Amino acid sequence: MQIDRLIEAIRLHKNPTALGLDTRIEYIPESFARPHMESGGAASAVCAFNRELLRALRDIIPCVKIQIAYYELMGNDGMICLKNTIDEARRLGYVLIIDAKRGDIGATAEAYSSAYLGESAPYAADFLTVNPYFGSDGVTPFISDCERTGRGIFALVKTSNKSGGEFQDIETSDGSKVYERVAMRVSEWGKSTIGTWGYSSVGAVVGATYPEQGAELREKMPHTFFLLPGYGAQGASASHLAGCFDASGSGAVVAASRSLICAHKKTGTDDFVSASRSEAIRMKTEISEVLSGHIR
Amino acid sequence: MQIDRLIEAIRLHKNPTALGLDTRIEYIPESFARPHMESGGAASAVCAFNRELLRALRDIIPCVKIQIAYYELMGNDGMICLKNTIDEARRLGYVLIIDAKRGDIGATAEAYSSAYLGESAPYAADFLTVNPYFGSDGVTPFISDCERTGRGIFALVKTSNKSGGEFQDIETSDGSKVYERVAMRVSEWGKSTIGTWGYSSVGAVVGATYPEQGAELREKMPHTFFLLPGYGAQGASASHLAGCFDASGSGAVVAASRSLICAHKKTGTDDFVSASRSEAIRMKTEISEVLSGHIR
Repeated sequence: MQIDRLIEAIRLHKNPTALGLDTRIEYIPESFARPHMESGGAASAVCAFNRELLRALRDIIPCVKIQIAYYELMGNDGMICLKNTIDEARRLGYVLIIDAKRGDIGATAEAYSSAYLGESAPYAADFLTVNPYFGSDGVTPFISDCERTGRGIFALVKTSNKSGGEFQDIETSDGSKVYERVAMRVSEWGKSTIGTWGYSSVGAVVGATYPEQGAELREKMPHTFFLLPGYGAQGASASHLAGCFDASGSGAVVAASRSLICAHKKTGTDDFVSASRSEAIRMKTEISEVLSGHIR
Repeated sequence: MQIDRLIEAIRLHKNPTALGLDTRIEYIPESFARPHMESGGAASAVCAFNRELLRALRDIIPCVKIQIAYYELMGNDGMICLKNTIDEARRLGYVLIIDAKRGDIGATAEAYSSAYLGESAPYAADFLTVNPYFGSDGVTPFISDCERTGRGIFALVKTSNKSGGEFQDIETSDGSKVYERVAMRVSEWGKSTIGTWGYSSVGAVVGATYPEQGAELREKMPHTFFLLPGYGAQGASASHLAGCFDASGSGAVVAASRSLICAHKKTGTDDFVSASRSEAIRMKTEISEVLSGHIR
């Protein structure tokens, strides 16, 4: 099961971090991008940039999250780049999350699931992010594939953005919030796929920007692994994350994109590989210090 | 504005129908698919099938809805087929809806919007379906593009599937349902883009399978155009739709996919073009009869 593999990869690296490849051409140092753009356009430069980062960070970071929007943005060339980045990440042994927030009615959810989680998925992910607005029959096609292939999903519960609460925090007639009702269903959807470490193939997206709600959800969803976006550029720091981990320091993976892939912009260097490595080590240390205080 | 163009195209054709190109290789008559598959694989057959239908139906149907999941399913070849189908639909003058249910935090929503609604969008749609679970800051990037380019979105409000109510129908503390709260926000998001015919560039997806809720939403959202999925294979008939239209018979477009593109399977013929034309005319007549009784 990929959920076991994810947990073991995090233990091995002592680092619950996912490298977010939300790569835009503007993020790439001009000196590196130029020759690739001249030969194959922006998508070719993004591909080469991703490859360099993937090769450089594998001793530090166990997991990669690819935000598919940035590849769709580049059209068919972008989708070829996506496929190449997926292949490179898999070849290098990363656990691979495709962040696509897909969701639709059953028949269409089946098609999406086949595209990312099926046996012969063209864009094969270990995990896919899923939007649960359609309810159970829009999510079960993904779960069926997970049961069969050992892959997993992360369903949106509490998103990291400022207005995420607009619908997610609506108070319902029984006093609970909408996201808490979603959380309970996500927890139930995962019951049939609990792996060796006590976590299910059906995980939850919980914004690191809402630490209190994250800690409450951690208590209420003991078998649900969390994907935590919002670290770094979105404003959450390591201290916000602690409550989303369990008593042994497991139970979550922290996604960081701009803070890692744009680290060279802060230091004003074109050597993006060294800048990203330094930031990845700094982030690992920061999270590790916070977690060592948290582990009971 | 594309919302005006959509309304005018429906008036011209006297037919509020969108042809749903949710094309799977299994839907295509083997005799037609084989030569294309031999030369260019499944995606090539889907492309050719779509092209035949688009050319054959343009005198009857004003609008096309492409469900992107079925193209992602075929990987990079599928995305090339998607692009070709988009180009063909535009060339033939259809109003084009890309049904992608995209949604994410602001920065990522911007990328998705650029991919489908931006000035140089690689997969340029007249309308895009959007999932509102992230709230306003996840939807406004799409609306900003609509304001600038005249394109539009349809935000999910009440979906057509059986378990759509699982979260959407949750009763909130003020007695309203979650989907009604979403509906009110969708209505507000549209206020800045109301066109000549009184409808906004921000439309709503309302499942034709829930006629009562559809009729209530019609009353509450006088400036919101509806995209109605669920007709045909999902169980809704023309009589279910009437309440989603306004007093003049405008205000909504009905999407039908399997009932139109698989019409040849019902009649047992390989001549899918004639079968789809007959079904398209039957559907047009049925809706028109129901609406003529409804127009006040």
